Amino acid sequence: MNILIIGGAGVVGKKLARALAAKETLRGKEITKLTLADIGDAETIDAPFPVETARCDITDPASVANVITGDTDVIYLLAAVVSAHAEEDFDFGYKVNMFGTLNVLERCRALGTKPVLVFTSSIAVFGGEVPQPFHDHSALNPQISYGAQKAIGELLVNDYTRRGFVDGRGFRLPTISVRPGKANRAASSFMSSIFREPLQGQEAVCPVDEAFPHFYLSPRQCALNLVTGAEIPAEDLGLCPTMTMPGRVWTIRQMIDAMTAVAGPEPAKLIRWEEQPEIAHILKGWRLDVRPQKAERLGLKADDSFEDNIRYFLEEDIAR
Amino acid sequence: MNILIIGGAGVVGKKLARALAAKETLRGKEITKLTLADIGDAETIDAPFPVETARCDITDPASVANVITGDTDVIYLLAAVVSAHAEEDFDFGYKVNMFGTLNVLERCRALGTKPVLVFTSSIAVFGGEVPQPFHDHSALNPQISYGAQKAIGELLVNDYTRRGFVDGRGFRLPTISVRPGKANRAASSFMSSIFREPLQGQEAVCPVDEAFPHFYLSPRQCALNLVTGAEIPAEDLGLCPTMTMPGRVWTIRQMIDAMTAVAGPEPAKLIRWEEQPEIAHILKGWRLDVRPQKAERLGLKADDSFEDNIRYFLEEDIAR
Repeated sequence: MNILIIGGAGVVGKKLARALAAKETLRGKEITKLTLADIGDAETIDAPFPVETARCDITDPASVANVITGDTDVIYLLAAVVSAHAEEDFDFGYKVNMFGTLNVLERCRALGTKPVLVFTSSIAVFGGEVPQPFHDHSALNPQISYGAQKAIGELLVNDYTRRGFVDGRGFRLPTISVRPGKANRAASSFMSSIFREPLQGQEAVCPVDEAFPHFYLSPRQCALNLVTGAEIPAEDLGLCPTMTMPGRVWTIRQMIDAMTAVAGPEPAKLIRWEEQPEIAHILKGWRLDVRPQKAERLGLKADDSFEDNIRYFLEEDIAR
Repeated sequence: MNILIIGGAGVVGKKLARALAAKETLRGKEITKLTLADIGDAETIDAPFPVETARCDITDPASVANVITGDTDVIYLLAAVVSAHAEEDFDFGYKVNMFGTLNVLERCRALGTKPVLVFTSSIAVFGGEVPQPFHDHSALNPQISYGAQKAIGELLVNDYTRRGFVDGRGFRLPTISVRPGKANRAASSFMSSIFREPLQGQEAVCPVDEAFPHFYLSPRQCALNLVTGAEIPAEDLGLCPTMTMPGRVWTIRQMIDAMTAVAGPEPAKLIRWEEQPEIAHILKGWRLDVRPQKAERLGLKADDSFEDNIRYFLEEDIAR
């Protein structure tokens, strides 16, 4: 198995690379090579198979052709311009999230090798007046451009899959928390920083009240789900190869209580509560009650409790 | 009101032009000009206001800029590559239905005049394993590329509307029957020809059995709904400006009985029943039970009975 991760320098890409290194096989076959591609420099990882890093700008078809070759078996397309960034820069969001996805699909089509393509969408495709809970047959009605671009990506992946150009499957990621590293330009960035910063003795701002419920998944479980996602036989995907990845609905209060249970009372005291006007209009539509039944049936999983998410962060990310 | 119809040489475009000519106003203001644009030659119509015809290829941004100008108040985007054609020519389908729509939206955005844009989508966006009946909050899961391209068009129109670049609204058209003129390359073409041809003494082939139920609308009512659709105030559209246009579910048998009631027993004898393998895979997913509640609430209407559809065709199209 020759595997390519586009977005290999990101939080999920890195966790996925480590999960593949630990597993050593994919789809029942030995992994023979892993390429971590990103717009910037990706870091290599220790693995029992060769790992390469590469530059890839998905907005450039030549750059895409450089990393997707005739011997690429599995492609993870994780690269994206995130929510607040895509809302701020309309053209750039479409360029990366829509045209970039199209460039990857067109490269696969041109090769004619029908690689497995794992596409990551987002729960940002949900919204508007569609009644909750959101289930596998709920309309996508994104209220931000990032969500529109991801919904378009889903339709493209589904159609290219139906036409036999790729063996595609798409997963709408819950909000990933606790994300290690720096804040990003996702409107949901605070949903990690209110744990990440306090657990390291720093202040963080929470722009929503503690009753705010949302749909979460740990980076670790997300990576494991992406491994499982690549392994689902095409015939089990049915007539819609894109689905919502499992997660769990927790309020900010439940998550803070989980942090306190694992790490004591001090971190929670470092959270400041104040509105952030620049993301308020994005967050307004986010009260997500999601039921990802299809993905659960296919073996993808949520975290058991947010205490696990806190523990994973302390063990895997702070320690690292 | 300066109105542009892109796709003005098509069946719906022509009926719409005549409906506008009869109405003389739109959105409470006098119509001052109507431009009928099409890839081929559009025919002019008699109207109490100036009518122009123009060539427009929506795949070419310069051609789009030629017909959409700073004084265009309302744009109808009806031009499309239809179902069987888009299935046969993958690249051309995306070029017209996706990139063409994007060219129109980008032109409006560049002008900054926020024109009313009426986009026609199709019930081909529905399908797959999504349970029937399809309602306003059902997932779009197209099983043909035409449907995928129209679903993408909807997302684009919705997002450009939300961002304030156009005052957009989209309507998923039911299968239009009885269509005058020649057969087109839509898989649903037989749904008109089995009435149109026999009513003129010619044979026609029906590739589905008589129990086949589907969702229909007459060209006349479609045109009237497109007039109403342009008049809906933006604030009444809510958070999803695209919706399914009303129609009614009839079986082939009910429709044939309606033809017999209006035109006597002879036409029905001219229908030959035989499978058409080239469209069988498209028709397989078409058992459409659709509930277009939002559009009904906003004043759009279905035909009362298929006898009306037959009568409209005899009066308006054969007579013409």
